Amino acid sequence: MVQNTEKYTVITGASSGIGYETVKAFAERGSSLILVARRKDRLETLRQEILALHPMLDIMVKAADLAVPQNVLQLYESIKSYPLRTWVNNAGFVNYGSVGNQDLEKISRMLHLNVEALTVFSSLFVRDFKDTEGTQLINISSCGGYTIVSNAVTYCAAKFYVSAFTEGLAWELKTANAKMQAKVLAPAATKTEFGKIANDVTEYDYDRLFGTYHTSTQMAAFLLELYDSDKTVGFVDRETFSFHLYEPQVQYAGSSRHNQKM
Amino acid sequence: MVQNTEKYTVITGASSGIGYETVKAFAERGSSLILVARRKDRLETLRQEILALHPMLDIMVKAADLAVPQNVLQLYESIKSYPLRTWVNNAGFVNYGSVGNQDLEKISRMLHLNVEALTVFSSLFVRDFKDTEGTQLINISSCGGYTIVSNAVTYCAAKFYVSAFTEGLAWELKTANAKMQAKVLAPAATKTEFGKIANDVTEYDYDRLFGTYHTSTQMAAFLLELYDSDKTVGFVDRETFSFHLYEPQVQYAGSSRHNQKM
Repeated sequence: MVQNTEKYTVITGASSGIGYETVKAFAERGSSLILVARRKDRLETLRQEILALHPMLDIMVKAADLAVPQNVLQLYESIKSYPLRTWVNNAGFVNYGSVGNQDLEKISRMLHLNVEALTVFSSLFVRDFKDTEGTQLINISSCGGYTIVSNAVTYCAAKFYVSAFTEGLAWELKTANAKMQAKVLAPAATKTEFGKIANDVTEYDYDRLFGTYHTSTQMAAFLLELYDSDKTVGFVDRETFSFHLYEPQVQYAGSSRHNQKM
Repeated sequence: MVQNTEKYTVITGASSGIGYETVKAFAERGSSLILVARRKDRLETLRQEILALHPMLDIMVKAADLAVPQNVLQLYESIKSYPLRTWVNNAGFVNYGSVGNQDLEKISRMLHLNVEALTVFSSLFVRDFKDTEGTQLINISSCGGYTIVSNAVTYCAAKFYVSAFTEGLAWELKTANAKMQAKVLAPAATKTEFGKIANDVTEYDYDRLFGTYHTSTQMAAFLLELYDSDKTVGFVDRETFSFHLYEPQVQYAGSSRHNQKM
């Protein structure tokens, strides 16, 4: 499926990891792009790389720290007038450690980024684009958003939020016959800068610490499989590392007589 | 089980609803109390009511808006030197409406209160009291924290967070042989001020809009059943309205060989 170069894909957390490879994958498909991350220099380098290969695309760079709530609203205001087609909420980080020992300033930043920024961007994109043909919202959760992993309880809980929010939104859009699709990608261990940030270290050996993992390039390819499908969930099985496309996994009480009557 | 009057139970959202009735139930059991809510006058009235019946208890009143992150840390600092025994994170509100139409300022407040304040209080209470005999943390989720309910997707996602966080913490404490127990209460429709706040209205008819519901007094009694048991989850079935005590419900990959090795 070739995209229209006049339509834009927004990718947060675009400066590295799954976000970075997803940018390149959408560029290959001929989509113009809006790259969002904190590190402007990295985004500029990525922009030049893409333009060298695909000079007909428009590649916009937006540097912002999305863990600061007002930046999220400002950023959306600055791009909402563009013909957006796809929005990938990929920005996020993990924190390892027991609940009683975790750094609460880091946890607050994680909740603001992984939960609040994703919620605000999703809500605004749905508000303005839900009736535009071909639009998709893809939120990055984790297999830890379906199964709690030890030593990462708060991170997993935040990803349970992302899974439930996105699956619930997918139901809501379908029920309303909206044109937008909402989907959730749930990676397992992926070799990115995630491990370093999670553990507050400068070196991190995925081979030693995980043994099995995907590369960011593999995950970006899975994301495109999800994009091309009509399924709601793209899920990496954390025991076998195989990738599957599923209907929503979370229980949904759409038509219960015990819902509030309106 | 009679509590020691020299030990304290902290209850957030104590000025009305399930919190208010839980305060009275713990006072009946002879526990001193720290009452937290925004409305100081209501807390003072409740304090006088309790002291009239139980003059030997110490009842402290702490007025604070827990949707403001710095208030959460300040409040904890002001009470952490007391001999705390039980902490009930009950403060929270619901928002009804579709994701594309929701008031994002209200949603941010909801995430700060229902998710972030609960996380910070839980983490600090665990940090300081996890090795104190008889301590319990009870977080109020919802049956919407296990099943997504239509027209309340963001609220349910926040409650999925609470369920996963608290169940994961319960596993973590058990695995570490800590003395504290963490538990999650999941009410269905309960007649409180919830409905008015959820819908931004001044009158709200539970009989017409729900038909079936529990009273706050019933829910406080269920909370004490959970408190007295060794189970982790106290759950109201939203179809039958029966109350059940369960082991953790969420999948947990405690000993997977695919966890990060540390």
